[in-house]
Amino acid sequence: MQTYETMDISAARLELAAVQEALAAWQAKALRLNMARGKPGKAQLDQVSDILTVLQQPEQCISDGVDARNYGELAGLPAARRYWADVLGCQPEQTLVGGNSSLTLMYEVIAKAYSHGLLHSPEPWHKLERVKFLCPSPGYDRHFRITEFFGAELITVTMTPTGPDMDQVERLVRDPAVKGIWCVPKYSNPDGIIYADETVKRLAALRPAAPDFVLMWDNAYCVHEFSGPFVAFGDILSLCQGAGNPDMVFEFASTSKITLPGAGISVVAASADNIRHLQTLLAAQMISFDKVNQLRHVLYLKDRANTLAVMARHAKVLEPKFRCVQEILARELAPRGLGTWQQPKGGYFVSYYAPAGTAKRTLALCKAAGVTMTPAGATYPYGVDPMDSNIRIAPSFPPVQELEQAMEIFCLCVRQAALEQKLAGKAPCHGGENMVE
Amino acid sequence: MQTYETMDISAARLELAAVQEALAAWQAKALRLNMARGKPGKAQLDQVSDILTVLQQPEQCISDGVDARNYGELAGLPAARRYWADVLGCQPEQTLVGGNSSLTLMYEVIAKAYSHGLLHSPEPWHKLERVKFLCPSPGYDRHFRITEFFGAELITVTMTPTGPDMDQVERLVRDPAVKGIWCVPKYSNPDGIIYADETVKRLAALRPAAPDFVLMWDNAYCVHEFSGPFVAFGDILSLCQGAGNPDMVFEFASTSKITLPGAGISVVAASADNIRHLQTLLAAQMISFDKVNQLRHVLYLKDRANTLAVMARHAKVLEPKFRCVQEILARELAPRGLGTWQQPKGGYFVSYYAPAGTAKRTLALCKAAGVTMTPAGATYPYGVDPMDSNIRIAPSFPPVQELEQAMEIFCLCVRQAALEQKLAGKAPCHGGENMVE
Repeated sequence: MQTYETMDISAARLELAAVQEALAAWQAKALRLNMARGKPGKAQLDQVSDILTVLQQPEQCISDGVDARNYGELAGLPAARRYWADVLGCQPEQTLVGGNSSLTLMYEVIAKAYSHGLLHSPEPWHKLERVKFLCPSPGYDRHFRITEFFGAELITVTMTPTGPDMDQVERLVRDPAVKGIWCVPKYSNPDGIIYADETVKRLAALRPAAPDFVLMWDNAYCVHEFSGPFVAFGDILSLCQGAGNPDMVFEFASTSKITLPGAGISVVAASADNIRHLQTLLAAQMISFDKVNQLRHVLYLKDRANTLAVMARHAKVLEPKFRCVQEILARELAPRGLGTWQQPKGGYFVSYYAPAGTAKRTLALCKAAGVTMTPAGATYPYGVDPMDSNIRIAPSFPPVQELEQAMEIFCLCVRQAALEQKLAGKAPCHGGENMVE
Repeated sequence: MQTYETMDISAARLELAAVQEALAAWQAKALRLNMARGKPGKAQLDQVSDILTVLQQPEQCISDGVDARNYGELAGLPAARRYWADVLGCQPEQTLVGGNSSLTLMYEVIAKAYSHGLLHSPEPWHKLERVKFLCPSPGYDRHFRITEFFGAELITVTMTPTGPDMDQVERLVRDPAVKGIWCVPKYSNPDGIIYADETVKRLAALRPAAPDFVLMWDNAYCVHEFSGPFVAFGDILSLCQGAGNPDMVFEFASTSKITLPGAGISVVAASADNIRHLQTLLAAQMISFDKVNQLRHVLYLKDRANTLAVMARHAKVLEPKFRCVQEILARELAPRGLGTWQQPKGGYFVSYYAPAGTAKRTLALCKAAGVTMTPAGATYPYGVDPMDSNIRIAPSFPPVQELEQAMEIFCLCVRQAALEQKLAGKAPCHGGENMVE
């Protein structure tokens, strides 16, 4: 098979016609396939639905003397705080256990910084002329959106194979308007990168000009290996404390991809002082989170060791899906020299870098062929990928058979976009400069 | 028995000594009793704990084609929206079903008004020099606190036996800085007043100067009779629409006192335009609320008629507690001419008006004797009752036997505070001017 780069024009025209014909055949099937979001599939939900029945009797509802059914315990059920401390490697008093969304907890931290200020804020952020926030990119669109929602200026930081480019980060935090950074330290969204120890150390030891700079540490995939053994991670709270930054970090996690995506529990971990301060701020809006569901999770997941056993069951469902994506990319795109991509062992995504300038066109073609994907650009601040290259593939939701179809269509779309570009003489058919290999 | 007002000084001294002795006897028992919060007791929780087992099988989790376990449906499970529309008498598209706290939904409306503005806000409230909020008082401390948290100036509005004093309200809303009003239209917290039809009509037909004035309609006790038949209520959304104010009202309710206080579901009802706008604002912070718990509630509560049957069971537990409070007040305080109080048929409180100037002292004595009550003043803006008279009695949590003890102690404390005042010659021993009879 010939790479598109070395193909001559007449061969490229024939190839384009063949690709278009193949895509037309798929279009005729009027399929509706979805690789847009990191959403567990039905098989995963079914195998953890025992959680619906772990809590049945009124007498089970008393935990450490607390009736989980009634009002109270804003920081969460003590047993749920111990559970998360075990999973994250921190102390129970450093945790606040929330409802079904860690995104909501992240939002709360930024929203409260905006309206009232954090523990060390000289004033609420809404009073400031300018707030800037560091966004290692490609990254998670919902992170970027929270800070954008509150008017922060989003500053793109380059992702490297070891995590955010720390030289950039260390330089940028000298600006007192820079108030924080979004991080997904393990199986980063979308690249699947695990931050190197050195990166984590440098992040924990930052010397930001802003006294209320916040390290938003979204440990979303902390136990989410789908291939190979559990990869241990350090306790970011201890690392920050050791570096003289005890109150700089807020760590987040949830059971959304451990039990039920819409009905899990979440946690924010931070210094005991931060947790106390956060409770003071949250007290205006609630009496307590849903402790009955927290108790259900404690009974079902028990501890970190048992959680890893549950995750091994998810891995059995997920691994074939990720393998399918890798096999089809390797078969259809590698020999044609089209793009580069990650081969993560955990998380929920495969980050594909299409030939520069073709991502949007590729996804428009996918849409026309019935395949929904995360919009091109979504992984960059303001939804603009400067290279128009990165595409987030989320293979978890469709069954393998549908995934195969979706990936076949996807590869045809990549090919068509690349051929169109070549024939228009716009740019060379190779990957963008944002590639991470 | 003699009223304290007509008692001479030497008799009052003897009476005080007797009261102090009786209180000392209670103190010696070192009881810990609580009448502070409208918290259902264990018997109520036990009789609705079947809700823990209504949802057991994966196949039950599909509702209207939506898998309740997965991400999605920010406005709530369609079946849950239909449930609330049935209870409140509005349309499903006018509802957004939330998590375990309606307080959080109320907070969200005010927080979003502050940070981004409501549908008709010329600008977000945080940009305004001054925001004022009307607080019919006595009222609910957690309502007042939300608006205080965002820096609003709290304006006290007099409560009357028919609801907020509408002459005051109509005059005050001519000020464009007045952005809204807190209302509990049925069994108001704490007075247990049901707003008269005329009051509701005048509220719906307000002509506020602020284009984004918001009627915060906390229908917390919409189906919460503990004595007598269900009292029907009108649909405030239709009333506002009919009066040309379709987007002025946000109505709230929850199952906190229907199923489990810490693990119920909540709703905000408003015009379809408001619900769409609210979803846009909430989309930054979450993907969806816990739909599994919403489904549990739909399966358990079914509809309004069945919900009323569940409430009848709660009434059987609550009615003896409220009767106990009334009997002891009637026996211990009425003949002595001490204070006035409500006799509501629903809600969670008895609002007691102590002799003016004695509420704080009364509650300090209660605390010393082991009885925890809502702090005096809590029912007024900034926690300051100008008459130092109103005390909110919350009889739902303790079992009747403990409640009897708590009420005995409470009445002794009222008596001691009144006698101390009389002997100090400060003021006459009768109820404050804020009394509602």
